[in-house]
Amino acid sequence: MTDLARLVREIAAEMAGIPERGEVASYIAPLAAVDPSRFGLCVVTAEGEVHLAGDALEPFSIQSISKVFALTQALGKVGEALWQRVGREPSGTAFNSIVQLEREQGIPRNPFINAGALVVADVNLAGHAPRVAIGELLRFVRHLADDDGIAIDEPVARAEQATGFRNIALANYMKAFGNIRHPPELTLGVYFHQCAIAMNCLQLAMAGRYLMHGGLLQPGGARIVSSRRARRINALMLTCGHYDASGDFAFRVGLPGKSGVGGGILAIAPGRASIAVWSPGLNANGNSQIGTLALERLAEATGWSVFGAA
Amino acid sequence: MTDLARLVREIAAEMAGIPERGEVASYIAPLAAVDPSRFGLCVVTAEGEVHLAGDALEPFSIQSISKVFALTQALGKVGEALWQRVGREPSGTAFNSIVQLEREQGIPRNPFINAGALVVADVNLAGHAPRVAIGELLRFVRHLADDDGIAIDEPVARAEQATGFRNIALANYMKAFGNIRHPPELTLGVYFHQCAIAMNCLQLAMAGRYLMHGGLLQPGGARIVSSRRARRINALMLTCGHYDASGDFAFRVGLPGKSGVGGGILAIAPGRASIAVWSPGLNANGNSQIGTLALERLAEATGWSVFGAA
Amino acid sequence: MTDLARLVREIAAEMAGIPERGEVASYIAPLAAVDPSRFGLCVVTAEGEVHLAGDALEPFSIQSISKVFALTQALGKVGEALWQRVGREPSGTAFNSIVQLEREQGIPRNPFINAGALVVADVNLAGHAPRVAIGELLRFVRHLADDDGIAIDEPVARAEQATGFRNIALANYMKAFGNIRHPPELTLGVYFHQCAIAMNCLQLAMAGRYLMHGGLLQPGGARIVSSRRARRINALMLTCGHYDASGDFAFRVGLPGKSGVGGGILAIAPGRASIAVWSPGLNANGNSQIGTLALERLAEATGWSVFGAA
Amino acid sequence: MTDLARLVREIAAEMAGIPERGEVASYIAPLAAVDPSRFGLCVVTAEGEVHLAGDALEPFSIQSISKVFALTQALGKVGEALWQRVGREPSGTAFNSIVQLEREQGIPRNPFINAGALVVADVNLAGHAPRVAIGELLRFVRHLADDDGIAIDEPVARAEQATGFRNIALANYMKAFGNIRHPPELTLGVYFHQCAIAMNCLQLAMAGRYLMHGGLLQPGGARIVSSRRARRINALMLTCGHYDASGDFAFRVGLPGKSGVGGGILAIAPGRASIAVWSPGLNANGNSQIGTLALERLAEATGWSVFGAA
Repeated sequence: MTDLARLVREIAAEMAGIPERGEVASYIAPLAAVDPSRFGLCVVTAEGEVHLAGDALEPFSIQSISKVFALTQALGKVGEALWQRVGREPSGTAFNSIVQLEREQGIPRNPFINAGALVVADVNLAGHAPRVAIGELLRFVRHLADDDGIAIDEPVARAEQATGFRNIALANYMKAFGNIRHPPELTLGVYFHQCAIAMNCLQLAMAGRYLMHGGLLQPGGARIVSSRRARRINALMLTCGHYDASGDFAFRVGLPGKSGVGGGILAIAPGRASIAVWSPGLNANGNSQIGTLALERLAEATGWSVFGAA
Repeated sequence: MTDLARLVREIAAEMAGIPERGEVASYIAPLAAVDPSRFGLCVVTAEGEVHLAGDALEPFSIQSISKVFALTQALGKVGEALWQRVGREPSGTAFNSIVQLEREQGIPRNPFINAGALVVADVNLAGHAPRVAIGELLRFVRHLADDDGIAIDEPVARAEQATGFRNIALANYMKAFGNIRHPPELTLGVYFHQCAIAMNCLQLAMAGRYLMHGGLLQPGGARIVSSRRARRINALMLTCGHYDASGDFAFRVGLPGKSGVGGGILAIAPGRASIAVWSPGLNANGNSQIGTLALERLAEATGWSVFGAA
Repeated sequence: MTDLARLVREIAAEMAGIPERGEVASYIAPLAAVDPSRFGLCVVTAEGEVHLAGDALEPFSIQSISKVFALTQALGKVGEALWQRVGREPSGTAFNSIVQLEREQGIPRNPFINAGALVVADVNLAGHAPRVAIGELLRFVRHLADDDGIAIDEPVARAEQATGFRNIALANYMKAFGNIRHPPELTLGVYFHQCAIAMNCLQLAMAGRYLMHGGLLQPGGARIVSSRRARRINALMLTCGHYDASGDFAFRVGLPGKSGVGGGILAIAPGRASIAVWSPGLNANGNSQIGTLALERLAEATGWSVFGAA
Repeated sequence: MTDLARLVREIAAEMAGIPERGEVASYIAPLAAVDPSRFGLCVVTAEGEVHLAGDALEPFSIQSISKVFALTQALGKVGEALWQRVGREPSGTAFNSIVQLEREQGIPRNPFINAGALVVADVNLAGHAPRVAIGELLRFVRHLADDDGIAIDEPVARAEQATGFRNIALANYMKAFGNIRHPPELTLGVYFHQCAIAMNCLQLAMAGRYLMHGGLLQPGGARIVSSRRARRINALMLTCGHYDASGDFAFRVGLPGKSGVGGGILAIAPGRASIAVWSPGLNANGNSQIGTLALERLAEATGWSVFGAA
């Protein structure tokens, strides 16, 4: 067993024993029902090794992690023109804040807060029916993960739609500024469904490989995005991937990462590893409490922080 | 001549020819008088090579770049307890905004906006006379740069003091919340003087080496800070080092960096290089326009972005 | 002819000649089509005299003036308990701002900004179908004005509904905080229809009599609200009736008043007169430019300001 | 004994028995030491009758009530040009908020929040030494009250100066925008001293007579300001006189009023009475708790609300 394999197991064992696990998201029933003791970890290395631990094969709702794949898809459609409709700066506010939109005339701060992800969904909709855009995103994620079993959790999608008043507010608010082009309910349909994609840690870490490999699916494999675009998506994950706790995540973990309210985090060590972790309890900022801790531990032990000497 | 030596020269030549150079800071006379055509670049590599180009030996006012050294000094004094008085998150607002302070009860968002740097100066003051704290910082910077010629530009310090009403407002505002411990005018005295330190690109790149070397002054040399602290300072520079354009700098350059209104930028490629660039014209966000461009070009050509595969 | 009759005519003549008339609201076609040269004025005195001038019999869209009648209706339903769901303070922001709602957890500042009026509409809906609530409000206004000819302008209501994204955002946003009790689309249906009530100046001044007569429809007539409630509605009109220009209206005119984006204003001189003015061009704050001027002139000439010696 | 005389006594007796009296201001020692059980009331009628009750002859620190007299003085110096440097709208924020100043470029919302009062003090300073401006204001207030015994409480002024970091911040912040013309410390000197004027209820009610008499010191007496200006000052008191509780005061009391953190309130019933009340305990908005209640009771019993039929 390699050192890394051992480390992944050790971290999983260590995390299992921590009593303070944060609060499971409770705004919709399917998320509230998840057992807070679950923990999964998967590390896919640049050499193609795969290390699993805990509940790494248990699917969970990826929620906002889908914003990374949707952003990649939107950049493929409209390129850098996307940045005329959404910014690239940390917001300094919560994931669902509407204040900044009023001040900045309907232009969201970045593609990873909800407002920005709604603009991205609007780009991906591109005049089609919502199910077409969703189908396209799903095929893209399956391709990245090399796994056709990835699907949308329909009860989650329906529950999001039934309770998502704040997102409905955001979409209509941006529509008032002309920054949502489709009828808001269609754009929201795409958004609520992409958030309901269910994946396990293995699938998620596999899907993140293109961000570790400078845009290639694997070394010598198909190009998903240019190396510059891969770097830039990583940069956005680092500065904006954890909402108003992005600075803290960079400080503690030192890796580009994107969290979801389902308790998952995708983290990228460029040139070294794609990592997925899952633990459903959230900290005060809405990011996985144990998941963040596990990544901090892993980055410390491996020296993978992008801020340290190689 | 090595490839890097050639690249540094090429970039300097290229930058010299760009007509649109931004606006030189005009709020004090000594800065307003600087010639916008100046450009300096210095790269110090992990192996100890030094590459200079343009006006790399011309001193300029480092202004907010001093916040990196002052933060390092304050962490040495009070350690992680510092974070009870200042946050670690991007602000989502301009460098001199006071709005966030009202909402967050006098706790500045991070140590690189002016309010945060004033708290850091207050920590460094530590009950002494301002000149003692300033002397200590100056000795620290001379030590880092291995150059006793570094000094404070007194006319700049005096001009800052005479016109710094917004910083006086910030300090008094935080004093009202109890987050400035000394009489505000003393804390402000430290701050205005640290901003007036004059350095050239060579001195600045040399002073940044400890952040490239995981906390060591040089490989095998004296330890300035722990490797963890060096990583964390780099993380803060990346997420907060360019005020409300930090996301854009991370997106375009991909290196931890700290800018100053004098037109300088210190950028760190961990394990690879410490870089100082200077061009006095500023972009709309108050960061060196040509300096940023030069760093973007350098990072692209060398692959030094922390977000790309090694 | 009495002095007042002559004054009303003089003001109308004077207003007709003013070239700078503001901008007609253009967000929906039926409003954009209104001729900016129109001007109507009606004064109903405490003694029951009625003075008309200009286009005082021409119906216009009363828009936000309906908020006064809807508030009176809601207070009749739930009494002072209403103030648990909506505040009584000037907002310091524009009529359609959403910023304050985030800071104050979905509780609008007052019943005359859009968000507050949506809460009022939600109270008036009271579990019924929107057309029931609308029918009830319409009957109330007809009763107040003693005119069964008052009706809703359906094309205006439809146009509001088709373009009212910002109001849809406000309603959904407050729904997320639990401060809208019905499905937002139903509450919005009530709101869009109440704004589309069409009245002329005579009808509007007649409808405002209860606020002049301390809550009575007319001296010795039916009691609409208690005298205390009439005073309080007047107080709210004075402090909040002109959005973020309420202070200016109080300063210049000195009467409780409520403006609408259709160019109408209802103003009350307690114990003396109920006044309706209409001129469709709006000033920068969204209030009738010529209408405000006419009221300033009238209040100056009559000494009706509530701030002057009787 | 007239009905009014009896009413004033009854209210004083009633107020004495109320156990919940709010919190006495504690930010400076001289205010913190005041006995919360004190209560004074003085009503001066249009006919010149004077009714006193309770501690009406006990001097207290008028604090922000001085802003009314200072505004009157400044309007006398620069007339309506004052409104280019300060607004006339309710702020929607606390008395010492700095947020609005950043958004609106150093122009305070109205002359009764601290920032606005600092601009007014800067106008009154007019190039002279602070003691000259203060002397002039003191003479003006003595003239209005017809009492040369009114003086500044020096220990209060010194305590304000020693702890007024938030006001120092406000002044320097506006100086940065050019909206304070003198050195901030001089303007602050005027402000801190005007707040420290000590008056009793009799003196205060006498000093407010010109606002009841349409600008005359007394019927047939000297003109202090034009009737229009008197109306306008009353309008500002009503919309802005109680900070972010101005709407509530208008709703409950219905009279123009200005409160101070010392527990005093000056209220004007135009054409009828000038009223001063004092009770040092403050409510959550910083206005006298018992004082507001007493005025509510008085206005209800007399029908003096400006919003009711005469």
